Amino acid sequence: MPRARGGIDLGGTKIQAVVVDADSAVLGQARHPTPTSGGPADVAAAMAAALREAAQGAGVEPAALTGVGVGSPGAIDADAGSVSGARNLPGWEGTYPLAGQLGEQLGTPVSLGNDVQVATDAEVALGAGRGYRSLLGVFWGTGVGGGIVLDGRPWLGRGAAGEIGHMVVKRDGRRCPCGRRGCLEAYAGRAALEARAREKHAEGHKTDLFKLMERHDRTRLTSGIWARALEQGDKLASELIDEAVAALGAGVASAVNLLDCEAVVIGGGLGVRFGEPMVERIAQAMRPHLFVDERPPAVRLAALGDLGGAIGAALLAR
Amino acid sequence: MPRARGGIDLGGTKIQAVVVDADSAVLGQARHPTPTSGGPADVAAAMAAALREAAQGAGVEPAALTGVGVGSPGAIDADAGSVSGARNLPGWEGTYPLAGQLGEQLGTPVSLGNDVQVATDAEVALGAGRGYRSLLGVFWGTGVGGGIVLDGRPWLGRGAAGEIGHMVVKRDGRRCPCGRRGCLEAYAGRAALEARAREKHAEGHKTDLFKLMERHDRTRLTSGIWARALEQGDKLASELIDEAVAALGAGVASAVNLLDCEAVVIGGGLGVRFGEPMVERIAQAMRPHLFVDERPPAVRLAALGDLGGAIGAALLAR
Repeated sequence: MPRARGGIDLGGTKIQAVVVDADSAVLGQARHPTPTSGGPADVAAAMAAALREAAQGAGVEPAALTGVGVGSPGAIDADAGSVSGARNLPGWEGTYPLAGQLGEQLGTPVSLGNDVQVATDAEVALGAGRGYRSLLGVFWGTGVGGGIVLDGRPWLGRGAAGEIGHMVVKRDGRRCPCGRRGCLEAYAGRAALEARAREKHAEGHKTDLFKLMERHDRTRLTSGIWARALEQGDKLASELIDEAVAALGAGVASAVNLLDCEAVVIGGGLGVRFGEPMVERIAQAMRPHLFVDERPPAVRLAALGDLGGAIGAALLAR
Repeated sequence: MPRARGGIDLGGTKIQAVVVDADSAVLGQARHPTPTSGGPADVAAAMAAALREAAQGAGVEPAALTGVGVGSPGAIDADAGSVSGARNLPGWEGTYPLAGQLGEQLGTPVSLGNDVQVATDAEVALGAGRGYRSLLGVFWGTGVGGGIVLDGRPWLGRGAAGEIGHMVVKRDGRRCPCGRRGCLEAYAGRAALEARAREKHAEGHKTDLFKLMERHDRTRLTSGIWARALEQGDKLASELIDEAVAALGAGVASAVNLLDCEAVVIGGGLGVRFGEPMVERIAQAMRPHLFVDERPPAVRLAALGDLGGAIGAALLAR
């Protein structure tokens, strides 16, 4: 298997690993839960285990891979191979030399990138963003992340560009999980939606969201639970998702007014789960806010689905 | 005078022309009112007259200039040398071949650029933006315009990037002069502020804004009138400017969260008139909304003042 590469999408709840061939076709994959206790070394061990399993599925030794790419949250220093301040990961407030540690365990070079940016790059190279020179990737999941490609290249700013979830859509508005007020994520992020639903439920608003959660043996309102509640016409779920779509419309249109990019790709757990009809709703919600309204950007559903982050990470190992 | 260049800032109320030397030092300048009737040909004639007067001040014939650059509102086609849909200029709904017409009258080549972008480029090349590779120019005047420089180069998107004034800071918020709701410009643009002040005044709110306007023989609330009212502690003026600063804080911080640029330069009629203390207030108002709050961007007052647009336009003629 010459030129096979590995990719790992390191998330707050799961570690997704893939092994791909030279054309980025997936040869093997594995998904493990992210450790919830311990520290960075435990997370790195879990990442190595997931990658080994994906490699086994592909029939290749990890040490025979051209390399492994990692899409990580937190602040990435790609040159130093380190990740700092990944607050959703256990014991990861400081800086950890992830590339070196993981590379040693796997016997192959490891490259690091920002999780959202590698998912955006994957959509541009292989997915819904093909053919566009400028693009905004919007990852609608637990939070709302963004990746920017301008003139065919990732735009990273000083390392933290793309924080579309923390653009203000309502000054003096709702409290965001980040602690600030009125951010897009405060209205649209899965975590914020769940907190809001719990509040409303506690206040006596009727909803089947939590019954569905228990019935499906979940401890939180996953994308699938939200989708089921909408399908059933649950009133509270519909109201909260309507508000999320309106906030996404305003926030994404604001970003387009600033960047004037050719396309927007919508991915993330909720984005992928809700699919095309919701992408169309977001495009409609953007319309009233687009300054150059006679030529809106293309708005597309992410084509690589759940594996986009890991496939994008594998691009780092080319 | 070898290598002298001309620059014209074409605004809705005034035409500012300069002639500069090879180092962009101003050798001559003239300011004429923009014609309020007629059509593009009349505007072009007024531009030629202003440039001739600036050239006379510099002791150089227009035909001896290396070239003349124009910063224009509307949609610019730099290659075709045309300007379309400049709605604040008389009879300019369609497309007019400005570069060719003006070049013929002046006997020197004319290059076109976007008014806000050339002012931003001037600050980067010669003003408060020197030394920064990524920067957002915010021009706070009748409207709120924005210019973007990334990796040392202007970012124009599909030709209309930088519309920071039409980023949404309050969903379902105040009506903007553009017709949309909740835009930054609806809270901070001079035109919107004046409309709001007139409403409040008509409703019986006390203010000296309109007395000051009459005393200074103005027909509108200019930047100078606003500044005087603030100096006098006028309550309505203070409230409206407080709200404008809060909206600018949210909007500019949102743009920084997306772009993660190194610096923000604040210019425009109100920005330049209010000066450093107001720039500091805007920087403070951004703070609560900055996602990476431990390293805010530098926030600087535009250094080229009223002539920045024309000096920036002259850069097009290098």
